[in-house]
Amino acid sequence: MATIKDIANRLGVSVSTVSKGLNGASDISEQLRQAVLDTAVEMGYTTKQMRGRDRKKICLFVENMDYETPEQFGYDIILGFRQEAFRGNYDVTVIPVTPLFQSTEKYDTYMLKNGYVGAFIVGFALQDDWMSQFSSTNIPTVLFDNYVRKNPCVGSIGTDSAEGIDDAIVHLIHQGHSRIALINGSRHSMISEQRRQAYIDSMTSHGLPFSEATMPYGYYVADAAKDHVSSLLSMGITAILCGNDLIASGVITECTLHGYKVPEDVSVIGFDDIPISTKLNPPLTTIRQDRIELGKSGFYTLHSLLNHVSISRTLLRPQLVVRKSTAMARPQPVL
Amino acid sequence: MATIKDIANRLGVSVSTVSKGLNGASDISEQLRQAVLDTAVEMGYTTKQMRGRDRKKICLFVENMDYETPEQFGYDIILGFRQEAFRGNYDVTVIPVTPLFQSTEKYDTYMLKNGYVGAFIVGFALQDDWMSQFSSTNIPTVLFDNYVRKNPCVGSIGTDSAEGIDDAIVHLIHQGHSRIALINGSRHSMISEQRRQAYIDSMTSHGLPFSEATMPYGYYVADAAKDHVSSLLSMGITAILCGNDLIASGVITECTLHGYKVPEDVSVIGFDDIPISTKLNPPLTTIRQDRIELGKSGFYTLHSLLNHVSISRTLLRPQLVVRKSTAMARPQPVL
Repeated sequence: MATIKDIANRLGVSVSTVSKGLNGASDISEQLRQAVLDTAVEMGYTTKQMRGRDRKKICLFVENMDYETPEQFGYDIILGFRQEAFRGNYDVTVIPVTPLFQSTEKYDTYMLKNGYVGAFIVGFALQDDWMSQFSSTNIPTVLFDNYVRKNPCVGSIGTDSAEGIDDAIVHLIHQGHSRIALINGSRHSMISEQRRQAYIDSMTSHGLPFSEATMPYGYYVADAAKDHVSSLLSMGITAILCGNDLIASGVITECTLHGYKVPEDVSVIGFDDIPISTKLNPPLTTIRQDRIELGKSGFYTLHSLLNHVSISRTLLRPQLVVRKSTAMARPQPVL
Repeated sequence: MATIKDIANRLGVSVSTVSKGLNGASDISEQLRQAVLDTAVEMGYTTKQMRGRDRKKICLFVENMDYETPEQFGYDIILGFRQEAFRGNYDVTVIPVTPLFQSTEKYDTYMLKNGYVGAFIVGFALQDDWMSQFSSTNIPTVLFDNYVRKNPCVGSIGTDSAEGIDDAIVHLIHQGHSRIALINGSRHSMISEQRRQAYIDSMTSHGLPFSEATMPYGYYVADAAKDHVSSLLSMGITAILCGNDLIASGVITECTLHGYKVPEDVSVIGFDDIPISTKLNPPLTTIRQDRIELGKSGFYTLHSLLNHVSISRTLLRPQLVVRKSTAMARPQPVL
């Protein structure tokens, strides 16, 4: 477990400052106190006072998503949720689940048996057993990047993909691109279907061509690039949007292997802005999701549901972060 | 101005309890303290301590909406916003505006000149001058029942009308109705267009007939019923959804004048659940919007924007409140 000294080192403050923050002393600023508590939560440091007996139990189920290190997509989402839950006086248990687990135990049963009063659901696929159960559960539940209709106990949190996709396409159009592909995330995912529709809507509204072949699925892994890049390039595609930054990293590698330069020959745009984005060569233009805030808003929504305020959904705005993987399209040969 | 005794009377507690709540004494519960502060805000009572010098200034612009008394639609929205803003250490000024005012003064100029750091915008119409300015303002701004694309400084809050309309139509279908009309709110309003689309989508998905004539506009006033009820009834309509509870009250009156009983001959459903709903004869079945929570969520969204968290939109779930103005449809004569 982390020590007070670890927290002090991370924040670059003295051990006594950390101690004051943890003990609620009045002679440090509220901002610094929150930074100390946030860092303590992130590093897994707790005191008896922080674990007070009256804290309510909630949990966070995660599937299909990496979250163990700060480099991974889920890390900040879960961290933001835990930090905000801590302030709200809740204890959070993070529980990885599988489809098999869902088929052996009903959601409501599991929650009641373990004394959890609410849950945050991250990374679930549409066909998961529990997804259908969320339509009728009475337990306050918040879905990340998923949505169920009409159940007042269930809310939803996510980023507005449609705006992000359109921002990226407009950016590429300003650079002279018109042959733009989308290597999407996974099939059977609400968010992939939304992004597919956003791509179709945006390309249509800007009068650009697309087809089934220009919007394949990439399953959020870098390796997926191998299946698609060469056929996209042979179709004359000059810019590739990707369902996440990992796919984009694979696309850059694959383009290079085929003798195409990024961004001179092909522009590449990622999604999420995980830390790897700045370290790629070239650094990646990407559609940023603020994952700490997604996690915090997830807790805020759950807290509202626990207090019988029926928030249906909250969307955060994406932000196009322009780095070096996009550039002016090469003039096309006149045919 | 209200006195401490007024607050004590409203809450049914002693003057000394109110005094403790206002002064932050530690020997009353947090819930009671919040109730005292919420009531003080509602009744306009302030102490020097409550008006502390470090409070930031925000404002709430309101147009096309009554809000002076608890019976009116806007009252709870504004109250919820002010209560939550007070807790967040902000001073709120409520400013009624007109189209003329908007044409004489730019939004950003007005805000900067008066030192407001953010605003909540309630009741605006699509063609209002300031609506187009919200697309490019850099001032944190939250729109109630309106939305602008892609501006990270502007967020949106509202109720999911589509779910409410479909809930109401499903309720009527279960009672044997198939000829269902919508007397909508005002033209040139985002929310009216959403509800019109929701009515079209729901009627279509349930295989029910509708036309331009079954979805007139009612401008949120009871008098609008006079223009529409008799022609709707002559078309064989047996159930009428209304854009708000005032229109519904007019519909009930008009039906009665034409010799139709509510709900025996015609079922009527309102929107909002303002206090009048329970006092109508018969008490009104209506689609409830939680207006206190809409106001509070409006402040939460503004607070997030002020802290550079770009919430795009938050929707609350509506709730169908079934009272006595809906009943089984009379068997229709076979033609």
